[in-house]
Amino acid sequence: MRKIKGGVTTALGFKAAGIYAGIRKPKKDVALVYSETPCVAAGTFTTNLVKAAPVKWCQSILKDDAPKHGIVFNSGIANACMGARGEQDNYEFAKAVADELKLSPENFFVGSTGVIGQPLPMDVIKNGIPGLVAALDSTLEAGHSAAEAIMTTDTCAKEAAADFNIEDEEIEIHVGGMAKGSGMIHPNMATMLSVVTTDINISQELLQEATSKVVSETFNMISVDRDTSTNDTFIVLANGAAGNEKIVKKNKDYDNFETALKLVCKTLAKKMAADGEGATKLVECKVKNAKTKEDAIKLAKSVITSNLVKTAIFGSDANWGRILCALGYSGADFNPEKVDVALKVENDDEEETLLLVENGVATDYSEELATEMLSQKEIIIKINVKAGYEKATAWGCDLTYDYVKINGDYRS
Amino acid sequence: MRKIKGGVTTALGFKAAGIYAGIRKPKKDVALVYSETPCVAAGTFTTNLVKAAPVKWCQSILKDDAPKHGIVFNSGIANACMGARGEQDNYEFAKAVADELKLSPENFFVGSTGVIGQPLPMDVIKNGIPGLVAALDSTLEAGHSAAEAIMTTDTCAKEAAADFNIEDEEIEIHVGGMAKGSGMIHPNMATMLSVVTTDINISQELLQEATSKVVSETFNMISVDRDTSTNDTFIVLANGAAGNEKIVKKNKDYDNFETALKLVCKTLAKKMAADGEGATKLVECKVKNAKTKEDAIKLAKSVITSNLVKTAIFGSDANWGRILCALGYSGADFNPEKVDVALKVENDDEEETLLLVENGVATDYSEELATEMLSQKEIIIKINVKAGYEKATAWGCDLTYDYVKINGDYRS
Repeated sequence: MRKIKGGVTTALGFKAAGIYAGIRKPKKDVALVYSETPCVAAGTFTTNLVKAAPVKWCQSILKDDAPKHGIVFNSGIANACMGARGEQDNYEFAKAVADELKLSPENFFVGSTGVIGQPLPMDVIKNGIPGLVAALDSTLEAGHSAAEAIMTTDTCAKEAAADFNIEDEEIEIHVGGMAKGSGMIHPNMATMLSVVTTDINISQELLQEATSKVVSETFNMISVDRDTSTNDTFIVLANGAAGNEKIVKKNKDYDNFETALKLVCKTLAKKMAADGEGATKLVECKVKNAKTKEDAIKLAKSVITSNLVKTAIFGSDANWGRILCALGYSGADFNPEKVDVALKVENDDEEETLLLVENGVATDYSEELATEMLSQKEIIIKINVKAGYEKATAWGCDLTYDYVKINGDYRS
Repeated sequence: MRKIKGGVTTALGFKAAGIYAGIRKPKKDVALVYSETPCVAAGTFTTNLVKAAPVKWCQSILKDDAPKHGIVFNSGIANACMGARGEQDNYEFAKAVADELKLSPENFFVGSTGVIGQPLPMDVIKNGIPGLVAALDSTLEAGHSAAEAIMTTDTCAKEAAADFNIEDEEIEIHVGGMAKGSGMIHPNMATMLSVVTTDINISQELLQEATSKVVSETFNMISVDRDTSTNDTFIVLANGAAGNEKIVKKNKDYDNFETALKLVCKTLAKKMAADGEGATKLVECKVKNAKTKEDAIKLAKSVITSNLVKTAIFGSDANWGRILCALGYSGADFNPEKVDVALKVENDDEEETLLLVENGVATDYSEELATEMLSQKEIIIKINVKAGYEKATAWGCDLTYDYVKINGDYRS
């Protein structure tokens, strides 16, 4: 199992493209990920009752038997809250891509991101499709172009890849993906928009099972602003191009695939949290010894979503009282008089841990050292609640002036 | 039923004082509300598992039979997460006041607010008590001093009062209170710190019942930052000084008292939301025709707590997509394709309503007018979900640069 440089074109047989079609200010705005070989697919989607047209489309075609060949994206407009017109536009978007590739609309997922409540400029999009298809390529650069084209308030493209070998065969499996997400990030099933491609040969059932499990431990554990989007979509496409014997039961190979998928998704999820709107710091909260798994998740998420914790981290203030407060209102069951809270930073293979609170009461820690640790770009908050044996990790970011600026100044 | 100018000294027989004892920078920091006549008392407290020592004390003495004579406050330090020392300090605080007034510690509630995790400076506090007791007075000014002494990041003192007549008697009843709260405001039982005094003669059971009901519709419906404090305390003291026949069952007089109590609490709650840390605008969200009462509450709270809605309101941007999005992830059951969203502003007895969304889709509204309406100091968002007959109202504020500044720059 290795983490490698790459993205959606890392797996064999996948091509991608990202170009400027003209939906918004000169910035790439449509992307396509395509496999000539048909794929099995798995997906998870927003739990928001208000679902964008592309989410409804993806959920619908995921259930049918049509083989899947890829996913097309646009950024700039979310195609959400547009009623029947939104669904019609979404269908025509998929159909335009399918026509160009001599396939059916049902072969393509669709992902849209941007402003809610505005119509897709269908003429502009349709004019852009031939160029988009013509730009398809299997290079890493083509994958990177696609990752750039799905960005909105993101400040950087988000890609990740891993590979591993199938046990008793000399076959290398590749898993690579891309994601976008910066604001309205509090996934509850999946992230804003992300696709992972793999050349493994696996059954649809096991692909969905691995996908759902990995999402619960990665994308669903990040939050930028506690706002669950209307468009969250995560799709995994597996085209079998690696040539391994099809995985149809949970064996060592399945476990390796799940680990690789988690590695890729966790990397993408952390990149999203670190690139949260206006963020200057990535915050990781590791909770251990919770009574139940649900409690561990509640505790970790409560800390990384607290506006008061987030502003204290922005100010490099070791205000542990706000951390205890956030644990206390999380809804999890624990004894506040047993809680330990520590800060940890990792730098160039060195790591430092500072215990702030022991059994619910402040230790005699150095404020100076705490401030220095909180001035790093990546901060780990370790919580031991001593109530059981379950653990969870969540990722978030600080809350800064720029978050207010980005979301107060412009309609995103 | 009249809303009148006043506060904790409006009801007959109540005195108050607020002075500078020296806990923090030259600013009043201890307050006392006192009735020579013993009172029946009711209270609601934070549901945060991490409870400050004064909260535990109030909950404990509320259950005993000792008559209640008042409540003493300090600001600057919350006396939370201080272990056994915190409880000892809290007891000594109550005892110092009781000694000065020749009473017992159990006669006095205690409220503390400020930084979590620092010890109360007991010498400073004890030195201040004689002066605090000597300053007790029944004037409105004395009540105002008390309201000032409990402020932390608040920018103004918060007081409210009302009066009404007991039905078949020519007796006037007064209800008045004060509150503090600006950050860490997402009450779940009560607000940060608030006390309401009344001269009505009423049984403890009915006083608690009215208190709990009113809190659920007022203090529990506001949020500044979704952070439920460790110190939330709301106490109602009734000394019977008005001389009415004791209210022991729910009659017209009880209803009038409940209405007056709600009027006072709602006024205080709205003042807290409007004075949210860094806030420039008060936001009211009125939801109607929800399927259940719980749904109505979830929907209204989801809108006023969304960071994205709050920043849009700061930017006077009619970004209704974020409102629909917040409704969608609230957990309430409704059909997004039936929702209406409107803005309403009230100015000098004139009111204006602008429908933004009808049946889930944008109307052809004027962005210019919407921006103008969102530039007011008080904004009402009206939601009709057409799923049933229940309604709820919640109050919040916008999210601004100053919220980040206040909470990133200094340990509050």
